[in-house]
Amino acid sequence: MIGEIQLPEIEELIASRNWRALKTTLAEWQPHDVADLLEILNPRDRVILFRLLPKAMATEVFERMEGEAQRELLEAFSDAEAAPILEEMSPDDRTDLLEELPHRVTRRALRLLSPEQRKIAQSLLAYPHDSVGRLMTPDFAKVKKHWLCGQAIKHLRSLALNKETIYYLYVVDDENHLIGVISLRNLVLADPESPLWDVAEDDPISVSAVSDQEEAVKILRRYDLQALPVVDSANHLLGIVTFDDIMDVQAEETTEDMQIMAAIVPTEKPYFETSFSEIFAKRAIWLIILGIAGIFSASVIRFYHSSLPSDLIVGLAFFIPLLMGTGGNAGSQVAALMIRSLATGEIIPKDFLQLAKRELLMGIVLGICLALVGFLIAWIVNRDPLIGITLGLAMVLTIATANFVGLSLPLLFKAVGLDPAFMSGPILTTITDVLGLIIYFNMTHLILRI
Amino acid sequence: MIGEIQLPEIEELIASRNWRALKTTLAEWQPHDVADLLEILNPRDRVILFRLLPKAMATEVFERMEGEAQRELLEAFSDAEAAPILEEMSPDDRTDLLEELPHRVTRRALRLLSPEQRKIAQSLLAYPHDSVGRLMTPDFAKVKKHWLCGQAIKHLRSLALNKETIYYLYVVDDENHLIGVISLRNLVLADPESPLWDVAEDDPISVSAVSDQEEAVKILRRYDLQALPVVDSANHLLGIVTFDDIMDVQAEETTEDMQIMAAIVPTEKPYFETSFSEIFAKRAIWLIILGIAGIFSASVIRFYHSSLPSDLIVGLAFFIPLLMGTGGNAGSQVAALMIRSLATGEIIPKDFLQLAKRELLMGIVLGICLALVGFLIAWIVNRDPLIGITLGLAMVLTIATANFVGLSLPLLFKAVGLDPAFMSGPILTTITDVLGLIIYFNMTHLILRI
Repeated sequence: MIGEIQLPEIEELIASRNWRALKTTLAEWQPHDVADLLEILNPRDRVILFRLLPKAMATEVFERMEGEAQRELLEAFSDAEAAPILEEMSPDDRTDLLEELPHRVTRRALRLLSPEQRKIAQSLLAYPHDSVGRLMTPDFAKVKKHWLCGQAIKHLRSLALNKETIYYLYVVDDENHLIGVISLRNLVLADPESPLWDVAEDDPISVSAVSDQEEAVKILRRYDLQALPVVDSANHLLGIVTFDDIMDVQAEETTEDMQIMAAIVPTEKPYFETSFSEIFAKRAIWLIILGIAGIFSASVIRFYHSSLPSDLIVGLAFFIPLLMGTGGNAGSQVAALMIRSLATGEIIPKDFLQLAKRELLMGIVLGICLALVGFLIAWIVNRDPLIGITLGLAMVLTIATANFVGLSLPLLFKAVGLDPAFMSGPILTTITDVLGLIIYFNMTHLILRI
Repeated sequence: MIGEIQLPEIEELIASRNWRALKTTLAEWQPHDVADLLEILNPRDRVILFRLLPKAMATEVFERMEGEAQRELLEAFSDAEAAPILEEMSPDDRTDLLEELPHRVTRRALRLLSPEQRKIAQSLLAYPHDSVGRLMTPDFAKVKKHWLCGQAIKHLRSLALNKETIYYLYVVDDENHLIGVISLRNLVLADPESPLWDVAEDDPISVSAVSDQEEAVKILRRYDLQALPVVDSANHLLGIVTFDDIMDVQAEETTEDMQIMAAIVPTEKPYFETSFSEIFAKRAIWLIILGIAGIFSASVIRFYHSSLPSDLIVGLAFFIPLLMGTGGNAGSQVAALMIRSLATGEIIPKDFLQLAKRELLMGIVLGICLALVGFLIAWIVNRDPLIGITLGLAMVLTIATANFVGLSLPLLFKAVGLDPAFMSGPILTTITDVLGLIIYFNMTHLILRI
């Protein structure tokens, strides 16, 4: 979102080493935009420009940068420069950074923190990867049940928390159990003299620190909350997760699903931040697995060809791509529908029977349409009605089968706790290919009485 | 999120027509949960239970239900029942409902509204589908530059807006131009006697009412805002869009992308709400188009087979699935990477050259790996090194080509303003299939000197 106009002008200021002008310009920008600018600069200029930022802005800009740029800056910083930034970062963003850094750098970063902040950072890093704990921040407002609304507002003023963490106040008892929540709105609209508990909501919606981040996404979206309190198994209040982090998780989950659906080992890093060799590895492994799986389709053809006259094989070979392609397409369609509906929580594996009934019928009806197309094509390509009929019938069975497989495998994977996205796109297609070929050749034997 | 335990018990209460017990139970639930319950009930019970809800809760529950259930309820309601609910609905949710309803029902609904609310509803419906205007609500707090903070809080109390629309106050001049924004947080933390403008931020980030909803998603996510002011071309403040609607849009966009990537005409409705015939149509059209496109691959084989001895064709046929499969997989991988990076705005069509350099190299390196796999398989299946070499070389070229095509087409589509998601999965595969076959057979002529 850096104005097309601003960028060249900025580069000119950098080229002409006009630091004073840069300083005043950047001070007026949004932290996000400064972060974007710094990311596209070379490391040397990046450090120089970062040092020009007003103290108040520096940490926020740093928080908003991608891990790669953060690491480079951190390594260029003196301890004296790095310490205050790490100290002021909001703990959730800091966890994000620390878990990405090389161990050496992480250790240095932890050493630079105040004992208090170090304790926080270490406790957050202790939560499993992709758990809610990794997302949460311990910066939030706790209040006591017996307070007055006015007291709570005074308390807020005394805390001066950063912006994201103040839209709810959480009511805890003396053992720090979460017993209620108050929205800032209700607090502001209430009479300062009225008891806090009158505007509070009891047994608030919360999420466990060890549950999967997707869980937090579902709850927060479901109840349209700005923040979600995080508790331990005994309902002690540990922290909160905020909607902005949740939106990022939602986007990451989507990227991951799409990569898995395309048979890529998922990576959380943006495309340009992922090294050539890394992307190569994440793609090659699946291509090779699927390639080797290709042996099956080859051997299916080999197995049947011995039993069929080779001119017939040739006649049939024309339509192998068409048949396999269509089977794969139909399977991918239903798999995509299932995977997405599972992701949004609209369907659960329990719905299998209901889905199977519907999608089997769907497969047959689609199959019949495509059978006609297949017959037509066979007729056009070589005027042999028998091969046309063979292809047509094979088409019905193949699509019905592919549809059923594309429905079952994602549900099965979900049911056993694996990512349903695996059973889609290329991986699914490789399976439907083999099934399609087997059906095709058996049809031939059946129809052509061979 | 309806407790597994609660549901049967609720059904029992319904079966035993124990309305009093139901009334007290439901009154304690979260509106979202009640909405979910009503959705799974049959229309008759749904109406009965809805009538049991406390007045204060009814509208919120109604807002949270899916369009289908809302329509059925609305049609069952008397004017006297429907009117207050439609009147109290937050205008953005109401637009969502009205645009889905059959015209007849929409007209009735508009008639039931107060002149004031009708004017609002009609003005919102006037915005193009998928525009920010369709998402926005005109319920928000406007303040004047010269006020004191205390005044603004009093003003808020007098408005008593619904929860989603109060976390920012917007400063307008006498011509209703948007000139500043104040977060509720800063307002609360500020001294009531201090001038409002001291805690305000000038030239706030805003979005145009006619721009695409994806635009609002990008801005709101980028700046971590809870709400975004919506303006017209002359910067007059029209309304706001809130983060909860934005998260829904984000989820819808994802679903749409995944459906298009799987060659399904996208639908915004959840799977179970979409009728059999509708899903059939949305899938059949692409399967047929792609099936007919299959003619090409069939005719490629036909074209070359005439020039090749048929036993050789048979030998080659073994590996057609493997070659086409791998080409399609490689293409789908890179296409998925491009489509997602385009969606998140990480790459733009301008990056083409940079991407092409990287992905062509990637294609060649991947191709070489898979060539070895291919040669190996050819060797295992029929001990003919020549066919193995042919397949291997064809593999390198096919994967490099597929990789390049999978990179170029999404970028091209984006550049000309089409949805890049089209150029992926099945559609892309159909293209790479034909290319793969042509390469394969030409290789044969080259290597086997035929």
